Amino acid sequence: MLYLVRMDVNLPLDMSQERADAVKSQERKYSQQLQRDGRWVHLWRVVGEYSNYSVFDVSDNDELHELLSGLPLFPYMDMKVTPLAKHPSAVD
Amino acid sequence: MLYLVRMDVNLPLDMSQERADAVKSQERKYSQQLQRDGRWVHLWRVVGEYSNYSVFDVSDNDELHELLSGLPLFPYMDMKVTPLAKHPSAVD
Amino acid sequence: MLYLVRMDVNLPLDMSQERADAVKSQERKYSQQLQRDGRWVHLWRVVGEYSNYSVFDVSDNDELHELLSGLPLFPYMDMKVTPLAKHPSAVD
Amino acid sequence: MLYLVRMDVNLPLDMSQERADAVKSQERKYSQQLQRDGRWVHLWRVVGEYSNYSVFDVSDNDELHELLSGLPLFPYMDMKVTPLAKHPSAVD
Amino acid sequence: MLYLVRMDVNLPLDMSQERADAVKSQERKYSQQLQRDGRWVHLWRVVGEYSNYSVFDVSDNDELHELLSGLPLFPYMDMKVTPLAKHPSAVD
Amino acid sequence: MLYLVRMDVNLPLDMSQERADAVKSQERKYSQQLQRDGRWVHLWRVVGEYSNYSVFDVSDNDELHELLSGLPLFPYMDMKVTPLAKHPSAVD
Amino acid sequence: MLYLVRMDVNLPLDMSQERADAVKSQERKYSQQLQRDGRWVHLWRVVGEYSNYSVFDVSDNDELHELLSGLPLFPYMDMKVTPLAKHPSAVD
Amino acid sequence: MLYLVRMDVNLPLDMSQERADAVKSQERKYSQQLQRDGRWVHLWRVVGEYSNYSVFDVSDNDELHELLSGLPLFPYMDMKVTPLAKHPSAVD
Amino acid sequence: MLYLVRMDVNLPLDMSQERADAVKSQERKYSQQLQRDGRWVHLWRVVGEYSNYSVFDVSDNDELHELLSGLPLFPYMDMKVTPLAKHPSAVD
Amino acid sequence: MLYLVRMDVNLPLDMSQERADAVKSQERKYSQQLQRDGRWVHLWRVVGEYSNYSVFDVSDNDELHELLSGLPLFPYMDMKVTPLAKHPSAVD
Repeated sequence: MLYLVRMDVNLPLDMSQERADAVKSQERKYSQQLQRDGRWVHLWRVVGEYSNYSVFDVSDNDELHELLSGLPLFPYMDMKVTPLAKHPSAVD
Repeated sequence: MLYLVRMDVNLPLDMSQERADAVKSQERKYSQQLQRDGRWVHLWRVVGEYSNYSVFDVSDNDELHELLSGLPLFPYMDMKVTPLAKHPSAVD
Repeated sequence: MLYLVRMDVNLPLDMSQERADAVKSQERKYSQQLQRDGRWVHLWRVVGEYSNYSVFDVSDNDELHELLSGLPLFPYMDMKVTPLAKHPSAVD
Repeated sequence: MLYLVRMDVNLPLDMSQERADAVKSQERKYSQQLQRDGRWVHLWRVVGEYSNYSVFDVSDNDELHELLSGLPLFPYMDMKVTPLAKHPSAVD
Repeated sequence: MLYLVRMDVNLPLDMSQERADAVKSQERKYSQQLQRDGRWVHLWRVVGEYSNYSVFDVSDNDELHELLSGLPLFPYMDMKVTPLAKHPSAVD
Repeated sequence: MLYLVRMDVNLPLDMSQERADAVKSQERKYSQQLQRDGRWVHLWRVVGEYSNYSVFDVSDNDELHELLSGLPLFPYMDMKVTPLAKHPSAVD
Repeated sequence: MLYLVRMDVNLPLDMSQERADAVKSQERKYSQQLQRDGRWVHLWRVVGEYSNYSVFDVSDNDELHELLSGLPLFPYMDMKVTPLAKHPSAVD
Repeated sequence: MLYLVRMDVNLPLDMSQERADAVKSQERKYSQQLQRDGRWVHLWRVVGEYSNYSVFDVSDNDELHELLSGLPLFPYMDMKVTPLAKHPSAVD
Repeated sequence: MLYLVRMDVNLPLDMSQERADAVKSQERKYSQQLQRDGRWVHLWRVVGEYSNYSVFDVSDNDELHELLSGLPLFPYMDMKVTPLAKHPSAVD
Repeated sequence: MLYLVRMDVNLPLDMSQERADAVKSQERKYSQQLQRDGRWVHLWRVVGEYSNYSVFDVSDNDELHELLSGLPLFPYMDMKVTPLAKHPSAVD
């Protein structure tokens, strides 16, 4: 079951470089693990913004929330979740 | 080069069923041809809305506009185009 | 799996009373059938508006879209779907 | 008498973990007590957000405000209250 | 129990003068009856707009919705309802 | 001459309890004095928000601004002023 | 007493040229009479829009509403009224 | 003196093809004449929308409004004008 | 050439009273000098807000930007500039 | 391939003058180098705002994002990117 998620990252301007690097590194690992196990299907950068559009394939709403709220950057992000359905004109 | 496009369809309520069916049938053919030639990469229905989120893979802005403005439903749609870039944490 | 849906109804002002009554009557039957089979869990009127907030319990996004787009009033409604997850402080 | 309430929590990023844990723990107790006495009827997490949608059953506006403004997280939340009425198509 | 209601009137530009006059006359009677029985406590015109702010004193949400949806101008109005509570600094 | 004013209070989260109590106490005195002299006609709490809707009866725009900008909480509030006129259907 | 008013004109696209000319001509006369008697102090066109910003000098809210709602174009305009006060740094 | 203008075209869906073609053809001529005389400096299509961003070089606000309001498509367009100034980091 | 400018002042709540007084005093001098030389034509307080609407008469966009960005309060203000043109119904 | 980009700069009010000057100086060099190599085609100040509208000519979305995210002021800016296509009425 697919969901489109837009994530906007807002790191505090006074966060230390070390702390920022650590959080981003954790985020990267967490994200890549989810990509490799097939639940984080797409991850695209929005041009000109510290934001991404992502597509997730999970079994239900609870799994998606658990996954998203577990992101190391979660406390610094605004998210907007759009549930997706099969489009009648989609080819396979 | 990828773009995310949200399309909201607003058919006039007084459009005849025949006309509506004809336009939708043309749209479907046009859409499926673009999906098959690899330029309309994803097509998802937004749950509860007569809308879709789509991802296009084209060579430049002009090609995307030509493609979108050629949609049979174009006069009845609001579109919002978001250019996408590669995300540094994206796997593969 | 639960979703909160807000529906705003906009019947055309020039729709005949007969047509309006027919559509509303169909909507009522469709809605009550879904309430009785347990998928349309809550249906509340928004005070002062021709709108409702509803909660649906369905197995996935596709089932919800099929259900919503099948509403007789669907062509006359704006909908906003919010996927819900279990709250950690919820009792039971 | 029912009200739908959306609550968005914005804890300051520089709040200590101890303080945050204490407030959340108080919130949980307060919330569960109200759920058990039947006034906080539903409590759902919004997927991907530190937010909830709740339904309250109270006897009047004053009781609802007293209840909401007494929440330990109240100073850190944005709330939007929507009064609900019985829907003519609601079953039972 | 008090509610603040903002009503914005949008009469169709092609409504006949006779029809408009009739609806407005009915609205006036309905409104004045509610004012006299003490449920429509205040009725003010918003300067420069075909809109009003009103305060209602009713016993619950259902009574308010019944009252508002019964307004002859209801099909032509956008309404926004704000439930009010006693303010701790209010003098009696 | 009447005006509707919505006031949203945003006290800084790091303001000391003593300072907050002092400002609120001054606000209360200032407000009650204006209520008693008949210029602050209504003061209602917005349910679920640290906000109020108020109605003022003053002789002109300058008097209203002087009154509002003199509020002890003025530096911490967002205000929206709506000038009101007599409604033709208002009963006395 | 001064008010800033923004007026956005939306003539129906199917209004006949004769009708449009007649309404505009009446509007012009009405407006110029008010300018000459000193109540419509300023009238400026917003560049690129069928809109104006105006400043009125009237004795109270009721007079302003009577004046604005009497405009021949009133049924076709959206208006936003902002009450103005003397600025402490204003010269003279 | 430069201005950025965004123009969104909204032709009525029931406008005849002949009428639409005629207006667009007039618009094209008018536009190209202004481009050739150096006042309409840039004209770009917004991808996916029946909209453009344009830059005008005119001597003052009045000249710009005269030019814009003279566009054959003016009655069918929403415009937003942004005055531009020289940027201190601009080369040349 | 005229422009309407809305300025919203947001002084940081932790700015010292001395610093605030100094900046406001400079602003006042700067503003009154521009009013006296005829370029800051009108300066009005928005009732209930720490905001003003102003009208400037300058020779071009660059002069206006230079003037506005030189305001001592510029770093603490949000501004919105609307270019004005002569209105065809304006008297004189 | 062209893109219109609006950039709004929000330097923290507590940033030291030295730090601000250093970042702005780096931004200026970076910007002018891109202007000289032909990729930052236009750079205009928005009158009254610490903002600019820019036009970029790059070969694809990735190049644009790399360029924009490399701006020294990037952490302090909100950006909005609009992809542009050739307009059919554009001369040359």
